[in-house]
Amino acid sequence: MAETRQWRLESRPVGEPTHENFELVTVDRPDPGPNEVLVETLYQSVDPYMRGRMRDAESYAEPWDVGDPMKAGVVGEVLESNADAFEAGDVVTGELNWAEHAVADAGELRRVNPDHGPISTALGVLGMPGVTAYWGLNDVGNPKPGDTVVVSAAAGAVGSVVGQLARLGGARVVGTAGSEEKIDWLTDDLGFDAAINYKETDDLSAAIDDACPDGVDVYFDNVGGPITDAVWPRLNVDARIAICGQIALYNATEVPTGPRKLAKLIESRAKVEGFLVSDYEHRWGEALERLSTFIRNDDLRYRENIVDGFENAPDAFLGLFEGENAGKQLVKVGEYDG
Amino acid sequence: MAETRQWRLESRPVGEPTHENFELVTVDRPDPGPNEVLVETLYQSVDPYMRGRMRDAESYAEPWDVGDPMKAGVVGEVLESNADAFEAGDVVTGELNWAEHAVADAGELRRVNPDHGPISTALGVLGMPGVTAYWGLNDVGNPKPGDTVVVSAAAGAVGSVVGQLARLGGARVVGTAGSEEKIDWLTDDLGFDAAINYKETDDLSAAIDDACPDGVDVYFDNVGGPITDAVWPRLNVDARIAICGQIALYNATEVPTGPRKLAKLIESRAKVEGFLVSDYEHRWGEALERLSTFIRNDDLRYRENIVDGFENAPDAFLGLFEGENAGKQLVKVGEYDG
Repeated sequence: MAETRQWRLESRPVGEPTHENFELVTVDRPDPGPNEVLVETLYQSVDPYMRGRMRDAESYAEPWDVGDPMKAGVVGEVLESNADAFEAGDVVTGELNWAEHAVADAGELRRVNPDHGPISTALGVLGMPGVTAYWGLNDVGNPKPGDTVVVSAAAGAVGSVVGQLARLGGARVVGTAGSEEKIDWLTDDLGFDAAINYKETDDLSAAIDDACPDGVDVYFDNVGGPITDAVWPRLNVDARIAICGQIALYNATEVPTGPRKLAKLIESRAKVEGFLVSDYEHRWGEALERLSTFIRNDDLRYRENIVDGFENAPDAFLGLFEGENAGKQLVKVGEYDG
Repeated sequence: MAETRQWRLESRPVGEPTHENFELVTVDRPDPGPNEVLVETLYQSVDPYMRGRMRDAESYAEPWDVGDPMKAGVVGEVLESNADAFEAGDVVTGELNWAEHAVADAGELRRVNPDHGPISTALGVLGMPGVTAYWGLNDVGNPKPGDTVVVSAAAGAVGSVVGQLARLGGARVVGTAGSEEKIDWLTDDLGFDAAINYKETDDLSAAIDDACPDGVDVYFDNVGGPITDAVWPRLNVDARIAICGQIALYNATEVPTGPRKLAKLIESRAKVEGFLVSDYEHRWGEALERLSTFIRNDDLRYRENIVDGFENAPDAFLGLFEGENAGKQLVKVGEYDG
């Protein structure tokens, strides 16, 4: 019988995850049941939100169980189908196992059209991160032309799209990132008005002041922690803060503390709102249509950081917390011949 | 020439304000100029926001200058008028000096109708605190019938109105306050479903859990600090948090720190919004009409804590930070004979 490999959660991390939390196992390749499809993974996504699922705590997503395969966004090719909607050779995306092969119910899969661009983009700029950026910026942040928009983790899969969409909407765009190479990409290729290398900046508050002479109207926060602390005092009247992620805090082993922030909201009448892309399920297509048009017109650029080989998936995930990736972090698992 | 007394800012407080920050001076009673009115103070308000104006820092309101008379909400009687809109004997309200007499431009005054109730209510339930409660709850908090609404400083001038309005709207209402006498008032007279004496509670989180078995949908925050920390983990999906005040932090001499709170907003998709009643200037009358109707029908109750004598105004103000007042804290300065 054919086999496949899976990454399972070996143990729950305390603080920063390590390789010891992951176990690579070889199992029999599963057979699809009625209305199910067998998918061969071509690309697997790794994302910061996964840190939350490794934890044994109630959150918006169920935690993963120790000993079970972990879950990830996957783009793959249908090998066998017992569902009318799909046939062998179709390219699909969905939340599947961290695995070379997995079985999924047809209802959990979305079709990927290879003519629309590289299939890997279904996990990045034309997938969850792109849609997160689109609705988070436009529905929660809601920038107006001339506004100053600050985005943290600006070179990441979400942040890089946020900044470019804000620029296209006529805003002044400032990003934070963790290397000179990323800073250059933001300002030279993506059209950011300014970018701050937070790792090389002694006085983050002064850097934000310099980059935002008219204050901050929209803050799109992927990071939390000291970067957010530095942006906060610069919030303008009626500022909007979209809380997308707080990666700076995800590995904390004690309750993270910092300056109390709520009083500033009174003076500025600012609004802070957390959001989840899953709440925009019904508006997914609308975002994809706009994003793909921007890409076709070269108004929106993206980068993918692809680690080759399924065995390297934990490396790719752990790198997220080191700020190693510019753009979307992916793992290439199989070869697409389409 | 007739004289009057004023309280002036003698020095800026460091931490908790003390009597040494206030100076009582006797000056010539001012003469009204063109379109101005001489007002005799009958009641003077003291409010937590005044702590911010004693500070030499930019905020939503100009700081007071050392050596100048401080400003307060006042209800008074017109003694002399050079304005068409007012005549001697009229009762008016506005932001005037901490003084027994003051001159004001007619445009800064609002008429008080003594037939609508005790004139002191123009500084409380039918004034700034009542309007703050009305629009902060209804426009920012926006509770639905069946929601759980938590309000901090629930026995205060704003909080007591917030809780009753929420109850009238069909919400489950939980308040926090700092004495058993206040707790009894909230639950026995004002119809709160539960009230927590934060000074006598070892485990505030457990107390909030007990009082809010279905979580918290709306949190109206007057206080900040540990009470807010205890409410935060109980926020439901789509919760709204209206930030009205943060009195627990106003006397801090260093940047107050506490648990970082933004990650919870992602999971709960909750919205935190600061507001100022001055932004509702154009909707003041709408709030007053509703509030006075509720009062006439005995659906809305209020308390005033009146300190007698202008010389005791600093005492009344300092008491705000001790949590001494239930309901609206006022200073009675003159006798109304109307």
